[in-house]
Amino acid sequence: MALGNNWFTEIHHNAGSAFSLEINNKIDEVKTQFQHIEIYDTSTFGKLMIIDGCTMVSSRDNFLYHEMMTHPALFTHPKPEKVLVVGGGDCGTLREVLKHSTVKKAWQVDIDEQVTRMAEKYFPELCESNDDPRAELLFEDGIKWIQDAEKGNIDLIIVDSTDPVGPAEGLFSEAFYRDCIRALRGDGMLVQQSESPLLHLELLQAMHKAMQDAGFSATKTLYFPQPLYPSGWWSATMASKQDSLDSFREEDSRHKPFNTSYYNIAIHRAALAQPEFCKTAGLGACRT
Amino acid sequence: MALGNNWFTEIHHNAGSAFSLEINNKIDEVKTQFQHIEIYDTSTFGKLMIIDGCTMVSSRDNFLYHEMMTHPALFTHPKPEKVLVVGGGDCGTLREVLKHSTVKKAWQVDIDEQVTRMAEKYFPELCESNDDPRAELLFEDGIKWIQDAEKGNIDLIIVDSTDPVGPAEGLFSEAFYRDCIRALRGDGMLVQQSESPLLHLELLQAMHKAMQDAGFSATKTLYFPQPLYPSGWWSATMASKQDSLDSFREEDSRHKPFNTSYYNIAIHRAALAQPEFCKTAGLGACRT
Repeated sequence: MALGNNWFTEIHHNAGSAFSLEINNKIDEVKTQFQHIEIYDTSTFGKLMIIDGCTMVSSRDNFLYHEMMTHPALFTHPKPEKVLVVGGGDCGTLREVLKHSTVKKAWQVDIDEQVTRMAEKYFPELCESNDDPRAELLFEDGIKWIQDAEKGNIDLIIVDSTDPVGPAEGLFSEAFYRDCIRALRGDGMLVQQSESPLLHLELLQAMHKAMQDAGFSATKTLYFPQPLYPSGWWSATMASKQDSLDSFREEDSRHKPFNTSYYNIAIHRAALAQPEFCKTAGLGACRT
Repeated sequence: MALGNNWFTEIHHNAGSAFSLEINNKIDEVKTQFQHIEIYDTSTFGKLMIIDGCTMVSSRDNFLYHEMMTHPALFTHPKPEKVLVVGGGDCGTLREVLKHSTVKKAWQVDIDEQVTRMAEKYFPELCESNDDPRAELLFEDGIKWIQDAEKGNIDLIIVDSTDPVGPAEGLFSEAFYRDCIRALRGDGMLVQQSESPLLHLELLQAMHKAMQDAGFSATKTLYFPQPLYPSGWWSATMASKQDSLDSFREEDSRHKPFNTSYYNIAIHRAALAQPEFCKTAGLGACRT
């Protein structure tokens, strides 16, 4: 069945699949020096942000991604005080980070200021904590920012980037992970969006290897649904300098003093379960 | 971006979304008295079966659905010996059921014989247990078959149907669940595909209510990824006449003597985790 003009379609090249949302109209767009940002009003998924033809965020389902990019890692780190978000220009990850009272400082470093300006206009709910005194929004190259950062000063780095092509490519390399390790404290952690377990298994394997080769002691992938992204099944991969990633602050998770729509202690444990084919592929292995 | 002629697209009406797979060619099709069955060869998902315009099964990702429609329920029932599959004409669910050595008899009752004939031709791996002496394939109306079944004779009913429109509509009703309860033994269970947690929450709520109103003591939804289906996030809902559905035969699951690609004991536990918005919606509640 052919789709009419009132549909936005993202073709997942290499995956041989495509996902479409019915749209009412295009609301806004801007071409920046880095990328092409478009905003649509959809018929059932609320507002939709597209970057370079790829779906980024919808009002309806972004809670899945943003909650799972943050709360599992924040409840795994023993005491996350200084948190860096690399990318994440829509500010949804930053908002979830700032729900944690342990956090004293949260930097968001996105290369493209226009992503945040568009989010402020069309996804104000994601930006509601941007004025939190603990938050600092910077529009710079995250890779360079980490290279220039004080050594051993950050507790948790969250890499909330686009796919590993274009501006985000360098964020999936061993060299980047080495820079992260240098910038992290002794018990520091990293968590990074790591694509679809079904479609991008080789990328996941390469990420685990690069993280371990860079010097992280343990790596572990989290699994969660994300309808907007290829296959509807997504992942984030955690890496730790010191500790195992199998346990987390369960009592703090159970008694979290903030609301979520997807995350809870049972979902946290569930996200750590490794599908049989992912175990076979060596994901979740660690050196310690 | 518009899709060319070499794509099969399923529009998810009401959901405002669509999913497409790149196809090499259409291999076969048949119009039966019940439905229109098509088989495609896709570029990356292997063979694809379409019924009445809806994606049913692909070679690449059907393992997720078939394993999760079977193993959690079979490892929850204390001793599943007699199992009925309603629908399931592609035989993938039957194959997984027959991996359990407790099973002495497995009926597959699908209204449309041509689904099985097409599966035998194009998905032979799903049909590899059709000749098992414990298996009996019947091509009849499952609702009527259950009404006529001996009382209290079945341990587990698996409802592996199409969406709740057309031939499958009656499978989501309180009257059907009452017939199931009559046909089940005292500790009998039912498990049924229950659509997308994100897109069909009201249907899930209605199913739980109908199951409980029919007399099931406990109901519980399982969550798992299924890229081929709307939103890529799917569910199955279990109902029990007698027992709670929170525990299962963990030692038997841990030492299962057969291979799986997705299911394992950790994934079983994970599938039982209720997302926060589903808890709020009252899913997984029970009367006992």
